[in-house]
Amino acid sequence: MTDPDHAFRAGIAFIDGEYVPIADARIPLLDLGFLRSDACLDTISVWKGLFFRLDDHLARFELSYARLRMTCPYSRDQLQTIAMECVRRTGLRDAYLQLIMTRGRIPIGSRDIRLAQNRFQAFCIPYFWIANADLRARGLALHVSAIRRVPAKLDDPTIKYYHWLDFEMGLLEAHDRGADSVLLTDLDGSVTEGPGFNVFAVREGELLTPESGVLDGMTRTTVLELARELNLRARLARLAPANLHGAGEVFICSTAGGIMPVRKVDAATIGDGAPGPTTRRLEQLYWRKRESRWLGTPIDGH
Amino acid sequence: MTDPDHAFRAGIAFIDGEYVPIADARIPLLDLGFLRSDACLDTISVWKGLFFRLDDHLARFELSYARLRMTCPYSRDQLQTIAMECVRRTGLRDAYLQLIMTRGRIPIGSRDIRLAQNRFQAFCIPYFWIANADLRARGLALHVSAIRRVPAKLDDPTIKYYHWLDFEMGLLEAHDRGADSVLLTDLDGSVTEGPGFNVFAVREGELLTPESGVLDGMTRTTVLELARELNLRARLARLAPANLHGAGEVFICSTAGGIMPVRKVDAATIGDGAPGPTTRRLEQLYWRKRESRWLGTPIDGH
Repeated sequence: MTDPDHAFRAGIAFIDGEYVPIADARIPLLDLGFLRSDACLDTISVWKGLFFRLDDHLARFELSYARLRMTCPYSRDQLQTIAMECVRRTGLRDAYLQLIMTRGRIPIGSRDIRLAQNRFQAFCIPYFWIANADLRARGLALHVSAIRRVPAKLDDPTIKYYHWLDFEMGLLEAHDRGADSVLLTDLDGSVTEGPGFNVFAVREGELLTPESGVLDGMTRTTVLELARELNLRARLARLAPANLHGAGEVFICSTAGGIMPVRKVDAATIGDGAPGPTTRRLEQLYWRKRESRWLGTPIDGH
Repeated sequence: MTDPDHAFRAGIAFIDGEYVPIADARIPLLDLGFLRSDACLDTISVWKGLFFRLDDHLARFELSYARLRMTCPYSRDQLQTIAMECVRRTGLRDAYLQLIMTRGRIPIGSRDIRLAQNRFQAFCIPYFWIANADLRARGLALHVSAIRRVPAKLDDPTIKYYHWLDFEMGLLEAHDRGADSVLLTDLDGSVTEGPGFNVFAVREGELLTPESGVLDGMTRTTVLELARELNLRARLARLAPANLHGAGEVFICSTAGGIMPVRKVDAATIGDGAPGPTTRRLEQLYWRKRESRWLGTPIDGH
């Protein structure tokens, strides 16, 4: 009569073909996914028992690992089944799921990465927010860092990978300055993105978001779709930090939290320092549509 | 009467304060060293029971993790003891040792990396060579890739970290072209470095090696010291691919193999296609000095 899945309430991982409690989840030290950051990933959110844009995420994940010339041991149908099973076993209704391909190990002594057996792993934890409830109510303070995000001509930022050391150092810098998170710039000083989120400015009723050097974020795509639905103008553009400082509204968007207002960028207060009406309309529409099963795939057995 | 360390012949890892066979070595999936490449490392070679430049490596390792604002749970003396113990337990006389600091885990749901407990781990495997004996005799064929190495203004390449996805893709590209390894270029198209090695050209008796955008490699430093000993001129310079194509000799250097000749760069045969005399002199001096205990620290009990 014990609940066999109780061990998974805090989270679960799928590793080496088995489901394990997240606290026990480990990967081989010699996996080049660790030793050389030779890995890619995708993250999918689950809200009220519904995956959001599951097919879109699986398609992007396939594109990422194919570009890295990896072969996944599972078909798309099997990946969907594993994703379902991860969430189902945790019993979570609101969850955050990550799919990961790593290059795998090569025989000790070899340098030939073509010999590696590529590995798939996944984990699922409770849904989490880039900004907590208090910050979502008040808006975040962002710091624009002089740390440059690896530009598109170096690594393709549309592949979701783990080159995040620049973001990590940017986060520490942001915390030093009392900011909640960070935006990195490109070699020309234009704004790119933050750790796990895209950014939008609202200027004279128009939505602007960086056109290049950023992940083609699923929530960013969603925001552009919602803008059309609300008859808001939106376009991709180069954004200097000053364009954010002087914007009427700024918000960020992510699978980890949807659409979240920004109250401050560097020393500049955005608008009157409270979340603006366009941000709030988009945020409300986003959650209302998600709860109405928009682009949703129900978890089996929920 | 069993050899308790037999399990370690293939390699050993030090993880969570314990020594484990390399095949069993695993790190937590949620360590940000994996999920965000938030890690740094150093590698040290052991030859005939002697560490090479152990103090220099430990000092560089400390500098790397300090720049990433990590705290190591072990003092330098303790690190040295762990390094010794890793090699001693394997029984290896020629070995490759890697020290790794990772950011560690943060509580599930948190985004605050300042809450992470930084982790130290190490592993030791048999000494290995970037080029096998045949290639060392004949010289390597290198491919200069259009893939750009992350430039110094983005990430500090003097910190040894795991941002190697560019190298990994470059390696696959090199293999496509029948080359043995790859050199990446910088944003201006100058040659930087390869995966785990620095490069030198010999032109009119002078050694040239890229001045920026490269790891300040320990073997690179050693080569410059050996050049002084042999009264060879040497300087740091910008090197275009054409400077390599037209060089009399080209060689690479690494903790994983010392000094190794290059016979071909792209379509250009270097010199007469056989390892050149300067390369051979440096190579022989390097190994002769190492075997004479130069900058060596003996493994306890060897």
